Amino acid sequence: MKGSRKLSSERQDNRERAVFEAGIKLGALYHQWIGTPISQESAASVESAIEKAVILQPFVEEITVRLDRSLMKKNVFGYSELSGLMFDVEIVTRVGFSYCRAVLAPENGYPLMKIVECHEIAPLSDH
Amino acid sequence: MKGSRKLSSERQDNRERAVFEAGIKLGALYHQWIGTPISQESAASVESAIEKAVILQPFVEEITVRLDRSLMKKNVFGYSELSGLMFDVEIVTRVGFSYCRAVLAPENGYPLMKIVECHEIAPLSDH
Amino acid sequence: MKGSRKLSSERQDNRERAVFEAGIKLGALYHQWIGTPISQESAASVESAIEKAVILQPFVEEITVRLDRSLMKKNVFGYSELSGLMFDVEIVTRVGFSYCRAVLAPENGYPLMKIVECHEIAPLSDH
Amino acid sequence: MKGSRKLSSERQDNRERAVFEAGIKLGALYHQWIGTPISQESAASVESAIEKAVILQPFVEEITVRLDRSLMKKNVFGYSELSGLMFDVEIVTRVGFSYCRAVLAPENGYPLMKIVECHEIAPLSDH
Repeated sequence: MKGSRKLSSERQDNRERAVFEAGIKLGALYHQWIGTPISQESAASVESAIEKAVILQPFVEEITVRLDRSLMKKNVFGYSELSGLMFDVEIVTRVGFSYCRAVLAPENGYPLMKIVECHEIAPLSDH
Repeated sequence: MKGSRKLSSERQDNRERAVFEAGIKLGALYHQWIGTPISQESAASVESAIEKAVILQPFVEEITVRLDRSLMKKNVFGYSELSGLMFDVEIVTRVGFSYCRAVLAPENGYPLMKIVECHEIAPLSDH
Repeated sequence: MKGSRKLSSERQDNRERAVFEAGIKLGALYHQWIGTPISQESAASVESAIEKAVILQPFVEEITVRLDRSLMKKNVFGYSELSGLMFDVEIVTRVGFSYCRAVLAPENGYPLMKIVECHEIAPLSDH
Repeated sequence: MKGSRKLSSERQDNRERAVFEAGIKLGALYHQWIGTPISQESAASVESAIEKAVILQPFVEEITVRLDRSLMKKNVFGYSELSGLMFDVEIVTRVGFSYCRAVLAPENGYPLMKIVECHEIAPLSDH
């Protein structure tokens, strides 16, 4: 979040909306997919389905989803359920010329969502 | 549900458990996946992810999922959400020698779950 | 599941549909509510909301939901999430004159759904 | 989003994190509760359960949930399911001295999430 000292009001708004949209998508993704039965063999299929679902949504520029197979221990019935700590997600949202990169990943044993960085692509007319 | 007139107690129990498991799986599937952002292009990916998730679970012998693409109208933001009427699902569960086939599909404008048929595969000792 | 040796075809169908509906409701409930932020103070509110949601559905005669407060340990952020092992649910479904009682409760460290018993209430014309 | 022209880097960060957290909470809430069986009679119970679940989460200062009873038309089975357009939600998040107020409410026939305003409470040392 460097370089954001002085922004025009519109660019400030776009930037905050990009941040807001990143939060919405990560919050929704987490609750949409948690609990899905999963195994090391089916993990790639779920990763792909999540990515294809998220990229459809407005303001999403990029999304990558990796699920930690090492946590997919089989329960007594031979499968696992998708849990918060399995997620390693990176998303880039865009509103106007403002971009926000955010992640969902384990931190101190907790699935944490955080903003990595935001930036603006200056249109020519700024110069 | 033909041919069920006289069943031994154990076979009756297995049959009812197969029916119960079919209900559990369809009820869970419905609420797990409803609301997922989807489009005609991503539908196959979601179908595959659902099938691979359900087949992992105990007592599931077969599962096929078809999602009605004709209902995937784009909203103002250019995508659709998976809704109950899009589902055309068939599942076969098994407990012991008892099988249950059930479906989730539109009927009279409502996403309906119902038992199609149950049957037993008689082990040799029955003869 | 005692006393089910010889049932007329219609009563057999009703009994199996009652079992099926109990499975559907428990499967749906589990996936609908899992992951909800919860605490010992808010547990009663969630129990009540689940009961009021389930009782609305067709074929449901009774539903009681108890959530194990002893499992509601606070995470680093001071709250807990509703998990499968917290559920102690009993449901009674009815189709025609057939009733099915089923539960969702911990068993051997796993949230298990099972049929407790089914019975028919004989209408007068059976005598 | 007035008054945000020139912020110190830390205050800018707090403000964006407050916005991010508001997005997370609204995105999660939406997908957590959508599809819940509901009626005009049970609506108050669900509103209360959602509020009590959301207020538990970090960075949430206030949350009010109103569900539009006029949209709770009974389906063929006599109940309704909680849908996106029923939500009228207002949330206030706080990170440090920065606050963000955001809403989820119908707009042009779509359940829209948006930032209403952000502000900082200047600590004494700013003067």
